Amino acid sequence: MSKSRIYTAALIVIGDEILSGRTADKNIPQISKWLNVQGIRLAEVRVIADDMDAIAEAVNILRARNDYLFTTGGIGPTHDDITVDAIAKALGLDVVIHPAARAILEKYYADKGGLNEGRLRMARVPEGADLIENRMSGAPGIHLENLYLMAGVPHITAGMLDGLTGTLEGGAPLLSATVGAWAPESEIADILIASENAHEGCQIGSYPFFRNGKVGANFVVRSTEADALAACTAGLKAGLEEAGYEVTEGGI
Amino acid sequence: MSKSRIYTAALIVIGDEILSGRTADKNIPQISKWLNVQGIRLAEVRVIADDMDAIAEAVNILRARNDYLFTTGGIGPTHDDITVDAIAKALGLDVVIHPAARAILEKYYADKGGLNEGRLRMARVPEGADLIENRMSGAPGIHLENLYLMAGVPHITAGMLDGLTGTLEGGAPLLSATVGAWAPESEIADILIASENAHEGCQIGSYPFFRNGKVGANFVVRSTEADALAACTAGLKAGLEEAGYEVTEGGI
Repeated sequence: MSKSRIYTAALIVIGDEILSGRTADKNIPQISKWLNVQGIRLAEVRVIADDMDAIAEAVNILRARNDYLFTTGGIGPTHDDITVDAIAKALGLDVVIHPAARAILEKYYADKGGLNEGRLRMARVPEGADLIENRMSGAPGIHLENLYLMAGVPHITAGMLDGLTGTLEGGAPLLSATVGAWAPESEIADILIASENAHEGCQIGSYPFFRNGKVGANFVVRSTEADALAACTAGLKAGLEEAGYEVTEGGI
Repeated sequence: MSKSRIYTAALIVIGDEILSGRTADKNIPQISKWLNVQGIRLAEVRVIADDMDAIAEAVNILRARNDYLFTTGGIGPTHDDITVDAIAKALGLDVVIHPAARAILEKYYADKGGLNEGRLRMARVPEGADLIENRMSGAPGIHLENLYLMAGVPHITAGMLDGLTGTLEGGAPLLSATVGAWAPESEIADILIASENAHEGCQIGSYPFFRNGKVGANFVVRSTEADALAACTAGLKAGLEEAGYEVTEGGI
């Protein structure tokens, strides 16, 4: 398999609590960084409501145009946890109790009152799915074709990602290097363009900030090629220094 | 205008830095909470790359099915700021220099070296657009039909939201009340369903957590009707207390 192919993933964040502003999402950066290490690029994210039709629409579009599709949220024990049902509907599958998931839950709740209807909901999967082991918090995720259903609670998702590490086929990881300068980005826009154009396969992002009464910016160079990344970063640094700015490697 | 109509907005977060995991988004909760106060519900969010076609696709779909569409990011002075061009393309419009935006920038940069090509980029708007005043940081946002183009930097977006406050037509604001209990949500799922079903127009979200070795959950009741909200919240509280849980009003 060529390492030059770019592998992409999409993420669907499912949850009224994110849309209402009550909870700030932490899964987007967590999953994105994990994907980078697997050599997979997060290409798009959608945040949608706890709504069967909205989930089904997003799942069918995004799984078709990405190598992988992750979801977070909606796989717990309560009535608003409808992700499994929505995805089964989107794929035209029945929902079944997964025997291994049931066994995990029976063991986990053995000294906590045992299984009940709500807890058993967490053993439900679309027919044909298998489980994503989670040594860190017990609750498994769900894998089906190119779909990966993760928890909404970030530390539980972290355990599921740990269980998946190294199992997904990826390309060359996207590398990045950051340099910072106390420069108004509006004064150095030309330097960015020149540096990017001079080094094929490199992209430069410009992220301005305002601190202690001064404007500055961090510039993130990205490439899958280590040599090109180093050359582009060196070129950018030289350009900024020629323009009279002191450059901080690693960013400010 | 009936107050029972539900007004919706969508948000497009534009930026490779969010997708790469480098920057954690802060605009989703900020804009969502501001919309709630205007009586507008955030219905969906997409996070997409700095890519002309991806922006145009998302803009055309989301502006058609929501009352309002907000974007954040990509309206600064550098080469990766392409939101204005992408939206003009999506709407079949030319990009022009807005005279008032040019005047704001000339004044702002008068003692900082004056306008240059990069800075003048920030005066470019799709033809026919007007500006969103920003008394807090100078840089204006852009308004065109039902589109609102905001900055990527959260405190600049805050200034633009301040300038827009009270100018968008909305319905009744979505009210919410929270109660918390040290209850495993898997034990009280039935109580949530019963409380929600008993009070029309109310929704209950369940948000579990794990702290100090104990499991608990906060339950957020939402409704546009204050009376229904109060009745549903009281019903939920009574149900939890009958089941033997101590309930904390306002959440844990």
